[in-house]
Amino acid sequence: MLYPKSIQNLIDRFNKLPGLGPKTSERFVFYLLSRPKQEIDNFIKALSELQKSTVRCEICYAFSEKNPCEICRNKNRNHNLICVVAKDADILPIEKTKAFDGIYHVLGGVINPIKKIAPENLRIKELAERLQTANGGINEIILALNPDMEGETTSLYLKKILASYKTKITRLARGLPTGAEVEYADEITLADALRGRREI
Amino acid sequence: MLYPKSIQNLIDRFNKLPGLGPKTSERFVFYLLSRPKQEIDNFIKALSELQKSTVRCEICYAFSEKNPCEICRNKNRNHNLICVVAKDADILPIEKTKAFDGIYHVLGGVINPIKKIAPENLRIKELAERLQTANGGINEIILALNPDMEGETTSLYLKKILASYKTKITRLARGLPTGAEVEYADEITLADALRGRREI
Repeated sequence: MLYPKSIQNLIDRFNKLPGLGPKTSERFVFYLLSRPKQEIDNFIKALSELQKSTVRCEICYAFSEKNPCEICRNKNRNHNLICVVAKDADILPIEKTKAFDGIYHVLGGVINPIKKIAPENLRIKELAERLQTANGGINEIILALNPDMEGETTSLYLKKILASYKTKITRLARGLPTGAEVEYADEITLADALRGRREI
Repeated sequence: MLYPKSIQNLIDRFNKLPGLGPKTSERFVFYLLSRPKQEIDNFIKALSELQKSTVRCEICYAFSEKNPCEICRNKNRNHNLICVVAKDADILPIEKTKAFDGIYHVLGGVINPIKKIAPENLRIKELAERLQTANGGINEIILALNPDMEGETTSLYLKKILASYKTKITRLARGLPTGAEVEYADEITLADALRGRREI
């Protein structure tokens, strides 16, 4: 005996989502079954909407309901400052800081030989094009990639590739995160924090 | 800046599923966006199918595509033996053992004062009815509830309520799970295993 086909099908669907196993997927399906039918309707509607009304912005390649996206169309933002992020989900936390008023560029990942992601698979050519064609030029590119092996590799690669454009290229600061304890900080972070020390 | 509405809507949908937080929900939505549109179609189809073609079996109250369900309609099963489970998802693992050939009764939960689940919220009346009306009577009821506080309470309550029917009532054995080590077994499990010891 297996589950009825319609239950098993939806379990399989959930199971394809990153990080979900069959037990959790089962739980979701039985949860949905236990709820008013309206809830499944809402789910269906949200999925259809997502499919219908999201496009990639042709400037920064972020998902948006408009093309160009809200940020790229906003004249109050600094269009000479580009923040390069690996993926869409990295934009919101940066926006929340309210410490950045430039525009973005979504690379679409980071260089990762194990996952077979080569520079050609990322939107690097598109970034170079933006540097060439930008109205008023680009003053600075901030590389906001994760401080790990792949992020680092990608940052160094971008620095090399973009060197010819003479644009200032920076990356996010390294150091102790808020609330950390010096006693328990790992040595790489602490070394970064020492090197990057600033006058107060 | 927030996500585009259609993205935020689906994030909110996922977020309602038990155990999912906003970050994981975000990941799911961006994962779906990164996949061929067909994948969202399949998801929508699976949800619509679930909504349309699942009903509760009027005998055992399990979700099924037919009413009565496959198990309740199967004449090769022992219809005088009922296994009481708390929820739908408990049936499959029991079926997988191939050690049970009776039919089921889905209680719809266990007694839990904190979550305000009282005996009236469970399908106990329906179970009593099955005992009265069963063709050929019920020889045995196996209570397959979790060996925790709530499962235990519910089992004892059921035993009391069903006493008048003179049906044999059993519960799943307690003891060491396969692969366990006596050295690390907790004392309640070990005491259960000692009390339930069997000749070999």
